[in-house]
Amino acid sequence: MQRLLKEIRHNPLLWLLAFVPVVFAAQKLKPEAHTLLFVLSVLAIVPLAALLSHATESVAAKTGDAVGGLLNATLGNLTELVIALTALGAGQYMLVKASIAGAIVTNTLFMLGASFLLGGLKHHEQEYNRISARLQASLLFLATIAMLIPSVISQADSVTAEAFTRKLSVGLAVLLILAYALGTLFSLKTHRELFASTKHDEAGETTWPIGLALATLAAATVLVALVSEVFVESVQKAAEAFGMTPAFVGFIVVALVGGAAEMASAFSGARKNRLDLSVGIALGSASQIALFVAPVLVLVSYFIGPTPMDLQFWPGAVVMILIATLTATLVTNNGRSAWFVGVLVLMVYLTFAMTLYLLPPKG
Amino acid sequence: MQRLLKEIRHNPLLWLLAFVPVVFAAQKLKPEAHTLLFVLSVLAIVPLAALLSHATESVAAKTGDAVGGLLNATLGNLTELVIALTALGAGQYMLVKASIAGAIVTNTLFMLGASFLLGGLKHHEQEYNRISARLQASLLFLATIAMLIPSVISQADSVTAEAFTRKLSVGLAVLLILAYALGTLFSLKTHRELFASTKHDEAGETTWPIGLALATLAAATVLVALVSEVFVESVQKAAEAFGMTPAFVGFIVVALVGGAAEMASAFSGARKNRLDLSVGIALGSASQIALFVAPVLVLVSYFIGPTPMDLQFWPGAVVMILIATLTATLVTNNGRSAWFVGVLVLMVYLTFAMTLYLLPPKG
Amino acid sequence: MQRLLKEIRHNPLLWLLAFVPVVFAAQKLKPEAHTLLFVLSVLAIVPLAALLSHATESVAAKTGDAVGGLLNATLGNLTELVIALTALGAGQYMLVKASIAGAIVTNTLFMLGASFLLGGLKHHEQEYNRISARLQASLLFLATIAMLIPSVISQADSVTAEAFTRKLSVGLAVLLILAYALGTLFSLKTHRELFASTKHDEAGETTWPIGLALATLAAATVLVALVSEVFVESVQKAAEAFGMTPAFVGFIVVALVGGAAEMASAFSGARKNRLDLSVGIALGSASQIALFVAPVLVLVSYFIGPTPMDLQFWPGAVVMILIATLTATLVTNNGRSAWFVGVLVLMVYLTFAMTLYLLPPKG
Repeated sequence: MQRLLKEIRHNPLLWLLAFVPVVFAAQKLKPEAHTLLFVLSVLAIVPLAALLSHATESVAAKTGDAVGGLLNATLGNLTELVIALTALGAGQYMLVKASIAGAIVTNTLFMLGASFLLGGLKHHEQEYNRISARLQASLLFLATIAMLIPSVISQADSVTAEAFTRKLSVGLAVLLILAYALGTLFSLKTHRELFASTKHDEAGETTWPIGLALATLAAATVLVALVSEVFVESVQKAAEAFGMTPAFVGFIVVALVGGAAEMASAFSGARKNRLDLSVGIALGSASQIALFVAPVLVLVSYFIGPTPMDLQFWPGAVVMILIATLTATLVTNNGRSAWFVGVLVLMVYLTFAMTLYLLPPKG
Repeated sequence: MQRLLKEIRHNPLLWLLAFVPVVFAAQKLKPEAHTLLFVLSVLAIVPLAALLSHATESVAAKTGDAVGGLLNATLGNLTELVIALTALGAGQYMLVKASIAGAIVTNTLFMLGASFLLGGLKHHEQEYNRISARLQASLLFLATIAMLIPSVISQADSVTAEAFTRKLSVGLAVLLILAYALGTLFSLKTHRELFASTKHDEAGETTWPIGLALATLAAATVLVALVSEVFVESVQKAAEAFGMTPAFVGFIVVALVGGAAEMASAFSGARKNRLDLSVGIALGSASQIALFVAPVLVLVSYFIGPTPMDLQFWPGAVVMILIATLTATLVTNNGRSAWFVGVLVLMVYLTFAMTLYLLPPKG
Repeated sequence: MQRLLKEIRHNPLLWLLAFVPVVFAAQKLKPEAHTLLFVLSVLAIVPLAALLSHATESVAAKTGDAVGGLLNATLGNLTELVIALTALGAGQYMLVKASIAGAIVTNTLFMLGASFLLGGLKHHEQEYNRISARLQASLLFLATIAMLIPSVISQADSVTAEAFTRKLSVGLAVLLILAYALGTLFSLKTHRELFASTKHDEAGETTWPIGLALATLAAATVLVALVSEVFVESVQKAAEAFGMTPAFVGFIVVALVGGAAEMASAFSGARKNRLDLSVGIALGSASQIALFVAPVLVLVSYFIGPTPMDLQFWPGAVVMILIATLTATLVTNNGRSAWFVGVLVLMVYLTFAMTLYLLPPKG
């Protein structure tokens, strides 16, 4: 605990933690000040993400980057799961689907691209475990393909039968969760050596003891989740004030803020020339959303939502997810990276963001 | 011959060969008992496939895995060609196209995925000739792309002119057969060393003399073809009794049973840690359907069918073929495999099967 | 200059240079003889392309293949830029877009495929710098994806708002040019060593002094541009006389003749077992069209055209560009090539050409 306080005292970014209680206070006192709540919640998420990042790295230092990456991805996606569950309870299915699609696209394009760019600006050329990255990219590709098949087939064949889509979504959800369980068995048990990353020496780095690291990890995740809820409640109204379309908010803003914690870890890994950690977080997190978060939401929708939710995405989202995962697969094929690869991946992301920002609202 | 009988006596699976005459007898005596004929024909195909598998491996042991793989793929696809020709003669073009598309998808997803899974359950990690696999995957990708171009372009541009589609299909069929001939020249003559697989020592394996192996190969293939015909005649009626849609029958059931012989070889290769053989059969067979079986059917339709057949597939089939070949390309990129890769490839296949099973029939 | 004349005397192909003044004379004397002008201009472009090829190789010999390849791609695309600007001034937006799409498809499929085939017929198996090729293929893929996103998203979501498309196209054009500038910085400055190719010894080759080479390069490029204009003016009318559709002309004929100079260099590199040069020209040139030529045309259309041009391609063109870049990415993944790879890549190109040739004209 003393160590944590010392860490906070030496890291000015963590001083922003002061905004965490401010958000909750503001929400109690001024629940209608959406733009204020939006800004405050973003300011509160940033230091929590930084804290989470350091704690995850401490755990990763003890357990190896791959397990640390998986741990990080799980906890990071807990945030997204909580956000989506809130929206599900309110029956906002479009927002839930936009945030699923947006999280996959943001993780594979923005997180990966910015990691390559930030790492590449510091290191001339970066190498990472190619075999592990290829495997994770293949898993991501197959996971998103499986998640998208109902959307793709019914669009291609113009099927609109609702009963068909719903039955298919439930069957698929069960399949995806089964694959997720088997995947966890694979990466943590039978083939964990494949996910081990290249060795790094980090003499100067101070790591926390495992107990403190785990406690901080848990606490910071819970706080991120709570603040994220304030953020979600305020974001739609605040977005209107800033002139953003609903598609842009769900796809870009929610995904960026919801993934802030993971991004901080991924970027910090890239700067420290540990691209294995960055690639592991980005691809692992995107896979987990397709294989775990999305099907859980479908199954849970039978209990908490006003009506069951299916797994059918709108055509533009399908295209963006496919392009994003294909890009990630091609780009991580090498096991090498340089700054310009990051620039191009980010450019694809920027083009998506620009398209969604300009897209005229339907109806 | 004695050796063959000894083999049959020691392998309980081959006792099922008794069903081969039973199928023909039942067909004569009870031509209307579709469900019975369906079950009997499946029971008869299984041992024939096993026999074919052992004979092919004996030939492969003498000629190298690549030539053995090619041989196997050719004979395996003879079965599919015979089935498709029967359907063509009856003017059932949808069934012909569904079985072409289904054979490509089943070979690339089910055969490859199950090989990876079965091999991976026995061997911790399997390596295979990466250069050969990549080359075959590239050929498969290009072959299916060429086969699909008329479907894709006319869908994209909403062209429905029948004269255009028919002229294009004939021109394309000629191009594809030319490419097939050149490809055979390439893999068997000018660059055969590229298709040679990594060496394996198989001390305990008893192989047949080349004469017996070739004779068994030929006889078993003919019997498979004959039994397959009974199967095709009964499958539609039997499928209705089991509640399957026509799309599911053409795409999944016909393809699985039609490819049973090749699958037995591929799976047996995977168990024996000879993944080169499995990958060669799966990708080679799928390429051969696109480059040889499909164009031959188009050209033959001008002589035996009631009206010429074109090469235009329905949109859902195009999407599934593209996803299947892209998956095969990505997954064989490594030259390595483990059980979970097989699980994910099979999951994509299962999702296709589930979608087709639930798809409401048109009209 | 003497050296240039000596070169011309010894190379019968260069005697065709005599057609260059003939084209200009014929254009003055018989401006209505479209078929004649078409044939003459093609005859004049061929020797200019050959001259350009030799000059580029001389420069490449002094500067390394990668820089030579980039130089070549820039000058080759100047031709295409001049052609497109002429069409833009006349308000022929369909022709401009067809020539952009056609240039990308022709460079990635025809130029690459024919290089592999021509090189493979002479050399049993060719190796080239895999890391550089993969990087260039990734850049090409991302560049074309970024260029196509507005087309894909608006098709998928059936958006037809013109204001949206126009705003998006301008924003995208700025992004693409920024990426182009950063890419040039990357390949010529910060990471030029990645683009260096494997060493080759070429004892027998006579190279020109750098001054003569550069002067010839510049002069030949200008002449190609001038003759190309005659070609473009005559091609539409001549095409009708030969029974070609407008889609075929824009996509195939303009692209083949416009890229003749680069193709001569790429093919000559392939024959000399310098596939790095060929792959560099083909992929670099296609990237440059997506990142530089296309956005410049959009921005310039605000000044010289009758009305601004957007970056929306028709669905068939989108599909062909995506297939072409995906094919290039898969095929260059290896760093190895043999003749049959070239055959299959050319087959995809031939299928496109055949489809466009047979496509019934709209309206």
